[in-house]
Amino acid sequence: MMFEEMNCSVARALAEVGERWSLLIVREAIMGSRRFDEFHTRLGIARNILTDRLTSLVAAGVLAKTPSIENLRIYDYVLTEKGRDLLGVVAALMHWGDRWLDKEAGPPMVLLDRKSAQALPRVTLAKKSGQPVGLDDLVIAAGPGATERTRNRLSRLQQR
Amino acid sequence: MMFEEMNCSVARALAEVGERWSLLIVREAIMGSRRFDEFHTRLGIARNILTDRLTSLVAAGVLAKTPSIENLRIYDYVLTEKGRDLLGVVAALMHWGDRWLDKEAGPPMVLLDRKSAQALPRVTLAKKSGQPVGLDDLVIAAGPGATERTRNRLSRLQQR
Repeated sequence: MMFEEMNCSVARALAEVGERWSLLIVREAIMGSRRFDEFHTRLGIARNILTDRLTSLVAAGVLAKTPSIENLRIYDYVLTEKGRDLLGVVAALMHWGDRWLDKEAGPPMVLLDRKSAQALPRVTLAKKSGQPVGLDDLVIAAGPGATERTRNRLSRLQQR
Repeated sequence: MMFEEMNCSVARALAEVGERWSLLIVREAIMGSRRFDEFHTRLGIARNILTDRLTSLVAAGVLAKTPSIENLRIYDYVLTEKGRDLLGVVAALMHWGDRWLDKEAGPPMVLLDRKSAQALPRVTLAKKSGQPVGLDDLVIAAGPGATERTRNRLSRLQQR
């Protein structure tokens, strides 16, 4: 089964942004890159792979391709609202990498609140109160978009 | 340059869990799957790809492979602490998919707090107060693990 056909938002999300380079291109766009050559140079990505990934991200509505204001013959790739909304995913990956893969040198980059210049807390699953939620505090239940198969699976899960 | 060599925690995280199936396998482990055949059947993943991804996730320390208590000739794949810590990443992807890819049927699955049975709020980058932080409220600064190249890049970014 294709990822986008699965009854699972994680799979559907990965169908759109789950190629490894895709989320790095989104990170690069978050850092302000807009031009093909900026992505190419800053990421060190091969031109053919970059072309392919940019095309997919535009097709998915994560990036919009528009003629540059400065030079109408070249294009800008700009995050759409849907693309900007990936900030939580990118930040969660970054914080996980900071914690587990920092090579004992500490985080390469830190995310700060612009107003206070304070480091932002780690992105985690949490209650409204801010209290982090771990696997043991979690129940996964069927939502309104669940198929019968998903419902059956989840009801068996809760009986354990 | 290989992802794991980049001076970026997003790239390093993607080097370990950035193959599309990898995060779905982690989701499946979060949902309680432990056996090769459970992952195989529930995800509909080809056996050779599953073998490859499980091996990578064990090598990365995301899953631990241990003989099953019930039958010592078969193995359980269990999330390590590092693997359990991916909950925020998986939940962020899920919530993004819920918002943008629900096919107008609503979320297939919802994450509830076990105690209160209330739906947990969306995983987002936020201040300590809980107020969400968008791209315009964000500054990306060099951390202790930044290389000179990263520092230069980020200082140019802040001058814009």
